[in-house]
Amino acid sequence: MLNFTFKNQTEILFGKGQISQVSSRLPSDARVLFLYGGGSIKKNGIYDQVLTTLKDAEIFEFAGVEPNPSYETLMKAVEVVRNNDVNFILAVGGGSVIDGAKFIAAAKDFAGDPWDILIKGASFENPLPIGAVLTLPATGSESNGNSVVTKKETAQKRGFSSETVQPVFAVLDPEYTFSLPARQVSNGAVDAFVHVIEQYLTYPVNAPLQDRFAEGIMQTLITEGPKALENPEDYDVRANVMWSATMALNGLIGKGVPQDWGTHMIGHELTALYSLDHAQTLAIVLPALMKVQAESKKEKILQLGERVFGVTGIDETIQAVVRFFEDMGVETKMSDYDLNGDSTDVAIDKLIASLENNGMTALGEHGDIDPAKARTILELAA
Amino acid sequence: MLNFTFKNQTEILFGKGQISQVSSRLPSDARVLFLYGGGSIKKNGIYDQVLTTLKDAEIFEFAGVEPNPSYETLMKAVEVVRNNDVNFILAVGGGSVIDGAKFIAAAKDFAGDPWDILIKGASFENPLPIGAVLTLPATGSESNGNSVVTKKETAQKRGFSSETVQPVFAVLDPEYTFSLPARQVSNGAVDAFVHVIEQYLTYPVNAPLQDRFAEGIMQTLITEGPKALENPEDYDVRANVMWSATMALNGLIGKGVPQDWGTHMIGHELTALYSLDHAQTLAIVLPALMKVQAESKKEKILQLGERVFGVTGIDETIQAVVRFFEDMGVETKMSDYDLNGDSTDVAIDKLIASLENNGMTALGEHGDIDPAKARTILELAA
Repeated sequence: MLNFTFKNQTEILFGKGQISQVSSRLPSDARVLFLYGGGSIKKNGIYDQVLTTLKDAEIFEFAGVEPNPSYETLMKAVEVVRNNDVNFILAVGGGSVIDGAKFIAAAKDFAGDPWDILIKGASFENPLPIGAVLTLPATGSESNGNSVVTKKETAQKRGFSSETVQPVFAVLDPEYTFSLPARQVSNGAVDAFVHVIEQYLTYPVNAPLQDRFAEGIMQTLITEGPKALENPEDYDVRANVMWSATMALNGLIGKGVPQDWGTHMIGHELTALYSLDHAQTLAIVLPALMKVQAESKKEKILQLGERVFGVTGIDETIQAVVRFFEDMGVETKMSDYDLNGDSTDVAIDKLIASLENNGMTALGEHGDIDPAKARTILELAA
Repeated sequence: MLNFTFKNQTEILFGKGQISQVSSRLPSDARVLFLYGGGSIKKNGIYDQVLTTLKDAEIFEFAGVEPNPSYETLMKAVEVVRNNDVNFILAVGGGSVIDGAKFIAAAKDFAGDPWDILIKGASFENPLPIGAVLTLPATGSESNGNSVVTKKETAQKRGFSSETVQPVFAVLDPEYTFSLPARQVSNGAVDAFVHVIEQYLTYPVNAPLQDRFAEGIMQTLITEGPKALENPEDYDVRANVMWSATMALNGLIGKGVPQDWGTHMIGHELTALYSLDHAQTLAIVLPALMKVQAESKKEKILQLGERVFGVTGIDETIQAVVRFFEDMGVETKMSDYDLNGDSTDVAIDKLIASLENNGMTALGEHGDIDPAKARTILELAA
């Protein structure tokens, strides 16, 4: 096992009705940026419940944070925060809204262009505290310090990570996910599954407990994910998917073990260039990456197959992963998607150029996914 | 799944050499109570490493916290704290020392007799912050708010729990466990295993991820525990046992599911009356409790057998649990131990009287372990 430090400061408020606890967690004299996305929370009643719990606070609403939140939109929210002495951000939505809140929190007192936080790793001070009300289980953003933001102007998708912007609390009410569109349910389960894979599918370091936890999350997602599509209002199924997605990326299972994240880095370019859903890009890249990295990942691929899917062999395991993605309704080839009219050959050239431009030239747990290997992966994923 | 709130504030510093991080986690102008037990840390070098990391602090040593820490001893430490304006407690040892530190932290500013914190659930203010350096993986005390203290005068073993006394950091260095006596290694693995059982072996509430995590910890303890006895200086084995014991009782696996704790409550009386090791009492009580509660625990017992031990049937599962305890060198019958010369019949009468005196008359996840049922359990465990 590798050395590690681990702490997770987020208070999880899990279960139906937990929104009522939010008011007691706000600062006194709360001036709250109420941040959300496209407005679905107005249709399913969450919006009204949030207003009720914020009734003693000064509220500044900011709607319209898009999937893959953009620097351009978030900077408008930064202005609202700066102009109104906001002292708390309540992010109501999925990973995009919560990731966006982290950027806003960090940007508030930043002297220069806050994009430097993402592009140069610039440090920041006095971030605002954030609370999260999760409506889409997927990214784990509700209890980690990670944020990914896209600059539309330059088609760059970049991330930063700091425990100082990790939510202080997160409301996880499974009922809030009943009305999600099927596509988001599918994406969420695939996203969470690949988060586990990135921290599991590397090489053995004699860390059996981390392996068991990772396998337990994947087993749960594989069993419960399809049920969430079939019976959208099954509370326990939704609860199990929700808790699995949080545990998949709250830092725990990756402690003491190597991590990969190559699939994510290559996938980010697919989203930045062609606006594919994040989970779609992962479903495209992962099976191909597993094939190309089969030799160095051999032991863990075989363990994944045997323990999680009940199959034997590397090819059989990769096929089982593909089947899970397809069961969740997420296609696994670039040619299954609209690439703005580009052929897959053209797309691959552009993707490799983007990886190189963004310095993503030594990916994976061994740093051995250079642009040539990334090209092989993308060709297999075409 | 049941509703829950979950937060764990302890920063885990895991791995060899992590003691060096302690100095950076102390308050400025640190006045540290350096609390430890019988002095084994002076033989294995931990004592010197602690002094090195505390070199900029004012240190007040307090040695002699015994296994099952006593109110009488701890009150002497409270005096040291009060007389020297101590502002931090560094607890170096196993669960007894860390549990003791929590009582000291809570008692410091308590106006009346601090035993009321345990016996009456009295509230307390301004507890001192605690750091833990773990030398014995077993209780999970290093990252929870639980404390169990024994009053020798009245042979009462009682607990309290508050997140305000949970350690702010915990050093988990597997090398610190190389020199542990075999008996403590055995006890630790059994203790951690039963912690998991108390949160797992109840009735199903459709919480598959919690089940998988619990099973993963038990699988790891069963595989690694005996190896720790065979090869005491195998770093990875020690690391895996240590991390399993912490995860067994840091709050996570018990969230959203029913909990039992009947084995612990009955076991506490065996320790209070006959000074048996905590783990010994658990190994005695659990198999008998499983037999008596077999009907209401049926589904989870069968699941435990199949998933963790690879056996089918209730009796076979109970036997597998007994075998694990025996493999770890811990005997499972009252008659295997010295009960101060009492026959098991006499002992059972005294134990039942103690349970009644302490109000432990409705134990277990259904509250159905009354004194009559506790007697049946103890008779089976005789």
